[in-house]
Amino acid sequence: MIDVDIVLQQAAAAFEHYKTIPAHVRALFLEAIADELEGQREALVPVANQESNLPLARLNGELTRTTNQLKLFARLIKEGSWVEAVIDTANPASTPPRPDIRKMLLPVGPVVVFGASNFPFAFSTAGGDTASALAAGATVVIKGHPAHAQTSQKVFEAMQKAIKKTNMPEHTVQHVAAPGNDIGKQLVIHPLTTGVGFTGSFAGGKALFDYANQRETPIPVFAEMSSINPVVFLPDTLEKNAAALAQTFGGSVTLGMGQFCTNPGLLLGIRSAALENFAQLLGEAIAQCAPQKMLHGGIQQAYVKGRQQILAQQGVALVSESVTAPAELEAHPALARVAAKDFLANPVLKEEVFGPSSLLVVCDNKEELKAVLKSVKGQLTTTAVGTEADMAAYADVIALQTTLAGRVILNAPPTGVEVCAAMVHGGPFPATTDARFTSVGTSAIKRWVRPVCFQGFLDSMLPAALQNANPLGIWRMVDNEYTR
Amino acid sequence: MIDVDIVLQQAAAAFEHYKTIPAHVRALFLEAIADELEGQREALVPVANQESNLPLARLNGELTRTTNQLKLFARLIKEGSWVEAVIDTANPASTPPRPDIRKMLLPVGPVVVFGASNFPFAFSTAGGDTASALAAGATVVIKGHPAHAQTSQKVFEAMQKAIKKTNMPEHTVQHVAAPGNDIGKQLVIHPLTTGVGFTGSFAGGKALFDYANQRETPIPVFAEMSSINPVVFLPDTLEKNAAALAQTFGGSVTLGMGQFCTNPGLLLGIRSAALENFAQLLGEAIAQCAPQKMLHGGIQQAYVKGRQQILAQQGVALVSESVTAPAELEAHPALARVAAKDFLANPVLKEEVFGPSSLLVVCDNKEELKAVLKSVKGQLTTTAVGTEADMAAYADVIALQTTLAGRVILNAPPTGVEVCAAMVHGGPFPATTDARFTSVGTSAIKRWVRPVCFQGFLDSMLPAALQNANPLGIWRMVDNEYTR
Repeated sequence: MIDVDIVLQQAAAAFEHYKTIPAHVRALFLEAIADELEGQREALVPVANQESNLPLARLNGELTRTTNQLKLFARLIKEGSWVEAVIDTANPASTPPRPDIRKMLLPVGPVVVFGASNFPFAFSTAGGDTASALAAGATVVIKGHPAHAQTSQKVFEAMQKAIKKTNMPEHTVQHVAAPGNDIGKQLVIHPLTTGVGFTGSFAGGKALFDYANQRETPIPVFAEMSSINPVVFLPDTLEKNAAALAQTFGGSVTLGMGQFCTNPGLLLGIRSAALENFAQLLGEAIAQCAPQKMLHGGIQQAYVKGRQQILAQQGVALVSESVTAPAELEAHPALARVAAKDFLANPVLKEEVFGPSSLLVVCDNKEELKAVLKSVKGQLTTTAVGTEADMAAYADVIALQTTLAGRVILNAPPTGVEVCAAMVHGGPFPATTDARFTSVGTSAIKRWVRPVCFQGFLDSMLPAALQNANPLGIWRMVDNEYTR
Repeated sequence: MIDVDIVLQQAAAAFEHYKTIPAHVRALFLEAIADELEGQREALVPVANQESNLPLARLNGELTRTTNQLKLFARLIKEGSWVEAVIDTANPASTPPRPDIRKMLLPVGPVVVFGASNFPFAFSTAGGDTASALAAGATVVIKGHPAHAQTSQKVFEAMQKAIKKTNMPEHTVQHVAAPGNDIGKQLVIHPLTTGVGFTGSFAGGKALFDYANQRETPIPVFAEMSSINPVVFLPDTLEKNAAALAQTFGGSVTLGMGQFCTNPGLLLGIRSAALENFAQLLGEAIAQCAPQKMLHGGIQQAYVKGRQQILAQQGVALVSESVTAPAELEAHPALARVAAKDFLANPVLKEEVFGPSSLLVVCDNKEELKAVLKSVKGQLTTTAVGTEADMAAYADVIALQTTLAGRVILNAPPTGVEVCAAMVHGGPFPATTDARFTSVGTSAIKRWVRPVCFQGFLDSMLPAALQNANPLGIWRMVDNEYTR
């Protein structure tokens, strides 16, 4: 029996200490976690493989991504400019006299991070949510995902070693493992919780969002939930590059058995012989993709049901499916098609089916293509595939796409999310619960802080980031000019 | 009968055009609004005076603040760096090859702004919410405040002239005037609304927040609601500066009949002869303050009731009240006191009483002072008043204060909110519904945008802010370095 109250009391007590630890020391802690995970690689990857059915190569890559993320956030806070220091110096001559006013971002308190089923390392226990929160100065309570409970526990143990090694407060990170949804709700509604990170289903994320907003003191929830990532194939490139595109996007649809939030679940094109040719080639590419085991039985059953439901809708036809029949727990990759008119009339077709299938929507003309794009909900990504001639002729379509998603991609599949400063892995609801933030890339740290303004402070009393001498050497906006 | 659907359809159609207008042209529009308001000063101020009972001098100052805000946002968008352009250039040598990724802030759509009763100009029709939204590229539907309906209508007419003069889309700004709360709810729940700005009561702001979160697609609400702005008077300064402090803070408590969200409604000190002396001097200062009319009957009645309720609580004593009895609609300035033990036990004493009264909480020692601070809810501001010796001895108290509020002030009253880049006029719930943003200062523009990421775009297809040549000459973070 987990006592959520004790867990959050401990997290809050640890926060009082942890937030005062200088950033360069917190950075050592993040690096120590990365080192511990790297040292445990041989033990961790097989366990994750057994629990998640994900291939060893993929898991090795994901673990590297995870340690790189930790090191990236360590570099970010060592450099220090992320705190958005803004200084407006006093002006005694103005009427009324202007006081000295300075602001910076400060962490708000303990946060709760939910592990994701589809990324046992990179979006789970020591994943991006945790790394960004620890970098910001928040303490973290991790709700381990039951589908990879042992992996989560082992990663947590590695983090505990890093805590000891770098003398962090014992409860800087805590790990809660329990089946069912009730413990998650309890963690979110606890008065000491100040923020929530989640990657998973719409039902799960929306429930946490609602709990958080119904609290006496509402808190932010950053839930990344549901996206079908529309890809528009423009006419000229279909004439010229159909075979290569079929290979690339067939690979993207089936990559990791489609178990990515950026999986291209919706493909759009304008009716033409070239589109028919592309559909056939793409179908062939997908037919050649062998079924593989999905993450767990629940996800596989949901995929089977979702695929069946799509195929049962008015006007939907199967283009192709993997020539190999699926064994137990395996997903059967598939491509379906539908006319835009039927798509527009049917909300079922706009929902995510988590797995290696995609739906090609055949539009009569550009206006219908735009109508289809306008009909879908908020997305993490949307892609346009075209030649330069296409881009010029369809600039209005691409402009429309920028209103749909957090990331707009030209001529590349949406799977593959670069961890960098300019990344937005987020998007309008229901892709996420807060389109103003990203869960991948350095800006993810901004989810766990708020600006605090200091007026009329003595220089020695200010946080180092705001002191006159700029002892941290960070970029700051001083009297409206950036300076270091 | 107002057709909210038509209003939002018009706002959305205008947005499609308005968002494409270059920032330097939008800036001309903001300046034109300022010019029109300045040109109408002689007509506007008397009407606002009649409707709000606020003195002419105050209203003239407020109108100047309003036009200055519009010009400030015009300068901000002409300069252009506020869009937070981040560029990570491609690296074909990395594994996998890193694509070109760029992001910037873009406006999300029409927003609804609610006028505030206590600032007919600066926080209403053409106030900070509207100015920041128009600057961001959003179109605005204004819900005029019924307490100053004519002022709101006249300000809107001035804005319409500016729209014509600068050739903006007709429905860039619309004005909805209707009594009752239903129209506000309809505006917030309309599917085309993408954000809400509000300054007013907790009941009003919280209702809008709940409507917004219960939508099929939740939207952000920036409601600035309720704050008692605790001021801590430290021992050494009370010994040395009691008379001057009594004048300064007596003036702050009664300024504008206390009708400011930053009004110091809670004063804290540690029991001593110096505190008793200060309490007496502060009481005398408040007693000398003449009653004045409040904004409207509803606010005056709420003040009378709130004051009575505070005085009726266990352990609360009246220190002084204005020697002049209040006439109709007038507020009766007052100072009350209570021991910390009684304050800690009584939630009623932690609620805002909107008007010229304050409650002095007498603490036995520093620990009790900290307990009192920990017991209050989220605040817009908190102030510490002390000598350098005080600051050294009470650093832990000031550190605690930084966790309570959006702005921490040393040795100055909280009333007076500078409009500048470093200002945070916001704070933890219930001061506002979103502590991550400010409603005053240039950062207020960040409330109406979201980041959009462009991956693999041709340079010519990118927004100007993200093009290689930096044609706008703005500050950008390119490969992790700020550059212009």
